[in-house]
Amino acid sequence: MPAATWTKIAGHGRARTGWLDTPHGRVRTPLFMPVGTRAAVRGVDSADLVTLGAGMVLANTYHLMLRPGSLVVSRLGGLHRFMGWGGPILTDSGGFQVFSLDPDVDEEGATFRSVYDGSLHRLTPEEAVACQEMLGSDIAMTLDVCVGLPAPREHVETEMRRTLRWAERSLMAHRGEQALFGIVQGGSDPDLRSESAERTAALGFPGFGIGGLAVGESLAERGVAIDAAIRSLPEGRPRYVMGLGDPEGLLDAIGRGADLFDCVIPTRLARHGRALTAEGDFNLKRAEFEGDGRAIDESCGCTTCAVYSRAYLRHLFKTGEMTGHRLLTIHNLHYLLRLMEGAAAAIERGDLAGYTAAVTGRRSGRPRTPATPNLRADI
Amino acid sequence: MPAATWTKIAGHGRARTGWLDTPHGRVRTPLFMPVGTRAAVRGVDSADLVTLGAGMVLANTYHLMLRPGSLVVSRLGGLHRFMGWGGPILTDSGGFQVFSLDPDVDEEGATFRSVYDGSLHRLTPEEAVACQEMLGSDIAMTLDVCVGLPAPREHVETEMRRTLRWAERSLMAHRGEQALFGIVQGGSDPDLRSESAERTAALGFPGFGIGGLAVGESLAERGVAIDAAIRSLPEGRPRYVMGLGDPEGLLDAIGRGADLFDCVIPTRLARHGRALTAEGDFNLKRAEFEGDGRAIDESCGCTTCAVYSRAYLRHLFKTGEMTGHRLLTIHNLHYLLRLMEGAAAAIERGDLAGYTAAVTGRRSGRPRTPATPNLRADI
Repeated sequence: MPAATWTKIAGHGRARTGWLDTPHGRVRTPLFMPVGTRAAVRGVDSADLVTLGAGMVLANTYHLMLRPGSLVVSRLGGLHRFMGWGGPILTDSGGFQVFSLDPDVDEEGATFRSVYDGSLHRLTPEEAVACQEMLGSDIAMTLDVCVGLPAPREHVETEMRRTLRWAERSLMAHRGEQALFGIVQGGSDPDLRSESAERTAALGFPGFGIGGLAVGESLAERGVAIDAAIRSLPEGRPRYVMGLGDPEGLLDAIGRGADLFDCVIPTRLARHGRALTAEGDFNLKRAEFEGDGRAIDESCGCTTCAVYSRAYLRHLFKTGEMTGHRLLTIHNLHYLLRLMEGAAAAIERGDLAGYTAAVTGRRSGRPRTPATPNLRADI
Repeated sequence: MPAATWTKIAGHGRARTGWLDTPHGRVRTPLFMPVGTRAAVRGVDSADLVTLGAGMVLANTYHLMLRPGSLVVSRLGGLHRFMGWGGPILTDSGGFQVFSLDPDVDEEGATFRSVYDGSLHRLTPEEAVACQEMLGSDIAMTLDVCVGLPAPREHVETEMRRTLRWAERSLMAHRGEQALFGIVQGGSDPDLRSESAERTAALGFPGFGIGGLAVGESLAERGVAIDAAIRSLPEGRPRYVMGLGDPEGLLDAIGRGADLFDCVIPTRLARHGRALTAEGDFNLKRAEFEGDGRAIDESCGCTTCAVYSRAYLRHLFKTGEMTGHRLLTIHNLHYLLRLMEGAAAAIERGDLAGYTAAVTGRRSGRPRTPATPNLRADI
């Protein structure tokens, strides 16, 4: 049995909910993974993640291979022990980070400069696999070539094909029990996405990333790309839309059959004082909250909303107390984690469209129909 | 009954342990109070303080009167509710902060510039009392005039006498149930300390601060000042050495009969990566800890040492992850809080000298006799 297997519980239209089993436990999908870039989700510790009921966390291979180094983590007993997290961990391959540094790409791999000290590093598909094996995550990702959108079709196609060749090499290099997921590329072109998905699926990966999205494309473009990819992926394996994390985007992708997500949105917004809430998002630093004794969201059940007021959190942000960042990170993560649980329950009862309309309507301050017409039609 | 009463449990020589009862509960002395400058102990939240078993926290009137303002806190239900802390709170009067800003002092009060926006503010003894009433702390402190040491005796004497006149005015202005503690000044001169203590005690305060210490004087000078003050203070009321927080200094002052302490040491050291431990203090950022899988202190029972290694904490500090600061703050506070509990137990069994020698010997890496000869002789 592969190290990560997905079992469907219920489906409605293309949306589905299920269990993902890993060596470090079972998590429910759809699932949002908090991003622990440097083996730490910014602002919170692993005990906070347990309290939050986080299912699986993501760590960034690129950052960890540079600091403290995969070998250091390996010698310390692996990533779980290093970060004190007993649940499942997914590591990305470093592809996204490396390619945002404008690397020198050749058929063999990518050469890039460290963001820490400017030193030259080389990452190949084989090394990305080896790094992640050393880190000891439950799920590893193959090294892919990300193309920023918009881009000429020819360039997208060239790099999608290179990603396929790298996927084959990754499989060849892969050893042991760790699950290795392939990544679908192809930009916003449905034909390229279909081809990429079909050929990546044919390689037999136990799960699939859908990469190169949530990079500024329209919701419609993204929908076309996700649909094309998912149509060509096997029903029984998990689909992970990489980098997606805004509430409306998540619900849209869930409606299209996606299972896993990660994004820095909840933690990064928290750093800037911005709260995600059922009634819409707002910045706690606004003057109107100076004397506001209410919780961030009075309907929220997180440990922050149970104790602290908007006024107190505003005060912490205005005076630069880092505890404000942590408390708001806890709230924002709670919001997204519970949003996913709500989506899973809605799929089970066969009403994801109603759930999505209610959530997005309440967040935008008014009832509204789903933003994408095909959302209701398809589920 | 005053709002803060102290009951002796046991004494040994001049050292003693007891209960301090406040409207927000009973705490054991000797007690170290974490400093919550802006209604937040840097790096941790109130739930962390509960987990740590912190008894009473200190908040800084000076900072809170400027941001968010005493009236704002009052309208939000007071400091306890504002910061989500159900235990006792002591507020300082702002005296120390104001006088570190080189204020314009006259008989009426002090005029100073805000550290936040440079605006001019005036603090009088009456206003310090009123501010703290609005904040709603369990224990308020009178406004005193701190004199930096060394200073000419004449200047120390003038400001000690002014502090006495301000103490009388503070009592006149004081209303309600809140406990108001007077502050003994007098620099390092035993005669001035005695006079200050005697005359402050005669005013009938339910407890006493011993101010103007832990500002760079030698341990011997400090001992002389504390001894002179405590000899003239009533046995049945708590004595609070303001600003003291290094382990050796705490144990020395406890041996002289002091009960309460506060200091930014554990939180400030944590910000710089420095750990307080039973085996001596060290900086976690040192290269030698890169692959060190041991806890900060393997004999420590804090939540940080239960889960995280030196290597992980070093990694968090080296990569600027704020969670490292929080986890080390938790450890450092745990260390000082448990050190105080150990001192209380040692006083009960009549062996503070042995405890002090064991703690300081182990911390300095070798067994040694107490640093101050009179410590053993006196208890």
